[in-house]
Amino acid sequence: MNLKSKNIVSVRDLSKEEIKTILQKAKEMEELLNSNKSLDTMRGKILANMFFEPSTRTKFSFASAMQKLGGQVLTLEDTESTSIVKGESLIDTIKMMEKYSDLIVIRHPREGSARLAAEVSSKPVINGGDGANQHPTQTLLDLYTIRRLKGKIEGLNVALIGDLKHGRVMKSLAYALARLDARLTLIAPIGMEMPQVIVEELIEKFDADIMRTTSITSGIKEADVAYVCRVQTERFEDVYEAEKMQRAFRITQDVLKHAKDELIILHALPKTTEIDPKIDETRYAKYYQQAFYGVPVRMAIISLLVK
Amino acid sequence: MNLKSKNIVSVRDLSKEEIKTILQKAKEMEELLNSNKSLDTMRGKILANMFFEPSTRTKFSFASAMQKLGGQVLTLEDTESTSIVKGESLIDTIKMMEKYSDLIVIRHPREGSARLAAEVSSKPVINGGDGANQHPTQTLLDLYTIRRLKGKIEGLNVALIGDLKHGRVMKSLAYALARLDARLTLIAPIGMEMPQVIVEELIEKFDADIMRTTSITSGIKEADVAYVCRVQTERFEDVYEAEKMQRAFRITQDVLKHAKDELIILHALPKTTEIDPKIDETRYAKYYQQAFYGVPVRMAIISLLVK
Amino acid sequence: MNLKSKNIVSVRDLSKEEIKTILQKAKEMEELLNSNKSLDTMRGKILANMFFEPSTRTKFSFASAMQKLGGQVLTLEDTESTSIVKGESLIDTIKMMEKYSDLIVIRHPREGSARLAAEVSSKPVINGGDGANQHPTQTLLDLYTIRRLKGKIEGLNVALIGDLKHGRVMKSLAYALARLDARLTLIAPIGMEMPQVIVEELIEKFDADIMRTTSITSGIKEADVAYVCRVQTERFEDVYEAEKMQRAFRITQDVLKHAKDELIILHALPKTTEIDPKIDETRYAKYYQQAFYGVPVRMAIISLLVK
Repeated sequence: MNLKSKNIVSVRDLSKEEIKTILQKAKEMEELLNSNKSLDTMRGKILANMFFEPSTRTKFSFASAMQKLGGQVLTLEDTESTSIVKGESLIDTIKMMEKYSDLIVIRHPREGSARLAAEVSSKPVINGGDGANQHPTQTLLDLYTIRRLKGKIEGLNVALIGDLKHGRVMKSLAYALARLDARLTLIAPIGMEMPQVIVEELIEKFDADIMRTTSITSGIKEADVAYVCRVQTERFEDVYEAEKMQRAFRITQDVLKHAKDELIILHALPKTTEIDPKIDETRYAKYYQQAFYGVPVRMAIISLLVK
Repeated sequence: MNLKSKNIVSVRDLSKEEIKTILQKAKEMEELLNSNKSLDTMRGKILANMFFEPSTRTKFSFASAMQKLGGQVLTLEDTESTSIVKGESLIDTIKMMEKYSDLIVIRHPREGSARLAAEVSSKPVINGGDGANQHPTQTLLDLYTIRRLKGKIEGLNVALIGDLKHGRVMKSLAYALARLDARLTLIAPIGMEMPQVIVEELIEKFDADIMRTTSITSGIKEADVAYVCRVQTERFEDVYEAEKMQRAFRITQDVLKHAKDELIILHALPKTTEIDPKIDETRYAKYYQQAFYGVPVRMAIISLLVK
Repeated sequence: MNLKSKNIVSVRDLSKEEIKTILQKAKEMEELLNSNKSLDTMRGKILANMFFEPSTRTKFSFASAMQKLGGQVLTLEDTESTSIVKGESLIDTIKMMEKYSDLIVIRHPREGSARLAAEVSSKPVINGGDGANQHPTQTLLDLYTIRRLKGKIEGLNVALIGDLKHGRVMKSLAYALARLDARLTLIAPIGMEMPQVIVEELIEKFDADIMRTTSITSGIKEADVAYVCRVQTERFEDVYEAEKMQRAFRITQDVLKHAKDELIILHALPKTTEIDPKIDETRYAKYYQQAFYGVPVRMAIISLLVK
């Protein structure tokens, strides 16, 4: 089975059916990985990893996924715009790389660049993050992790914790979770709440069950999943305020006293201080496992896009 | 069949027969690529891509070619001379890399460096461009593109357009085209003409049919192929003069009104303003296709050099 | 047969038996390499090459070894700490990369970092050099080279020449040679001698036969192997003194008049002026061959660690 679209630009482009197909395929891939068999469905195929912005997780998990399928990888890193030094357009760069490869992954700081790439490329294009806009494969691996570890998504109480105003990860995830009928608890400092326009869209489109709070201990009580992101202190003008927020939005063992026993904590990584490292060794911490799931999910996506 | 020499340093080292062997082999490779079969003639073999100067096209098309043959790639990029920081000689660097690989591609800003590398290496060496000197695989893919798209080279009128004084691509191409009995139309701004010593050599050696002009509209009239390169405006002292030249040497739809219907436009890429982007979508534009032909041509060369 | 430990952090962790197992396996690997057959014991497996400090030899020889075994490579280079920009801990970086790979090679400027990596990783970890501390695979390839070229290690007179005070290569090698019952001649400028505490340890632990001198012509007389390293002139305060030492510790044809006919000269490379380039072409020079042996030795280690 192929995906309707040959590209993965935004999770909004994917139907509920297509999301389920990807998650199902990812399960198969995880089993193949665990079986320790070598695969060769992508033998002779090349994935072009085009990074116009630094990344490690996205870059390496796509590379690992392609290699685990028996394929190979070309890596273009142009964070200082070396090829743009010569004045070449992004369109020309894409039209070159698609000649050398069978599939393109692109991360670019400019919003809409992945959509543009998909339009000019005859080979499938996967958006690996375009500025503050979209990062669909992150959302898909987040969904996979939740379903894999909790058995379902529908009806779960998922707390999104941290700066919900900036950053693409939380917004895309809220959209996808609402579509798949999870309940959302949005826990953000004042001034960093999920934009009202998005909350209203989720309620109108999906009749979403959304609770909002600024208190992490109160919000975490009913949560089945706590998805944490960084509160960027540099966004606060007042240093005192920044430190206060950083302390208030840190996951510690004290905070977890308020949580369910079966709570799982997720994080897109890299993390800094927002989760006490003592949590890393507890049964709650599932973010390293989540990082691993990036591989089977991306193997699934590659397999569905490249014939 | 193997090439006489184990190295590809200059297109001047290749006999007419050897050039034909490479182009013939490239045709086979293109067919294999199009058949979507995975190849493994280079399985277990390693190509060392050594770039002491930035490059994207040459680097990625060699890597892609090697991977499409089932081989693998090591990439050394030393544009800031990190290993030379420790004071190591180029000879020692080559003698190291040849121990780790089966074939070396080298791009280096110093003229003659590829010849030096070929002398000290026991593994085959391909020149990926040495300063303003030689870039033989670019010339071979240019020849392949012309023969592939026009059915022949002999007797064709090939217009070389732009700065013909500086830069290796146009000089090497003129030499190879003359040897294969194409007719040349050299179209360059005053002060950027093909050096007289080269023109004389082509006439003496190959009895070449060469027309020279400074007018793009006049020169393009009889052309079957228009090979365009950048006019580097920074070479002009006078800004007004530079802009005038840039306008005069730009390929636009107006210019193409003077051209044959079957004209094809080639460019080594990356391009900036020298071709109006509107041309990209026309039937004339074959430069992206030309970029693709870099892969089968380099597959052919690798196959002929590595036993 | 597997190694007792799943990691290679220090040559001191390896028993005599384990060292012999690795050297024996390396011999098999060399024969397989020479047979020109393609191997696929690591097919579907991924080696993560993590370099937090520049390296070419270690990086490329591990990559080549993995590729020659049919496996693939992910390369993380973070010499400017790009991921640490985001504040991620080394532990988190390791816990990410182990999810994407089957084996980790790490070079890091901080002593003890490889040991830390081995502790937090569930996949095998190889120390590719941690600061001034350990570089065990270099020592293993040095041992392999000596045994391969001289037929044995026990009883050989191995001269270690240059700055024996700083740098990990010479100290680790002295330890391993003493353990394998070689005789040592330590030739160093005044102020750059092997630390007394190490010499005493070698004598106490292994009853090592050690001669010490500051004269290269005298020390080289009885040597079967001369292992040379750089005298870093920037360590001398007095420029005149520095130049004098550089001249005094340079291997030239004059110095070799004092040596045995069968002497072999080794060097971890890269070298600068400490060996006269005229020596490169003589029968004494075995350092390029030594670089090659890095591949079968690392193939052996990979094969023993990854099941």
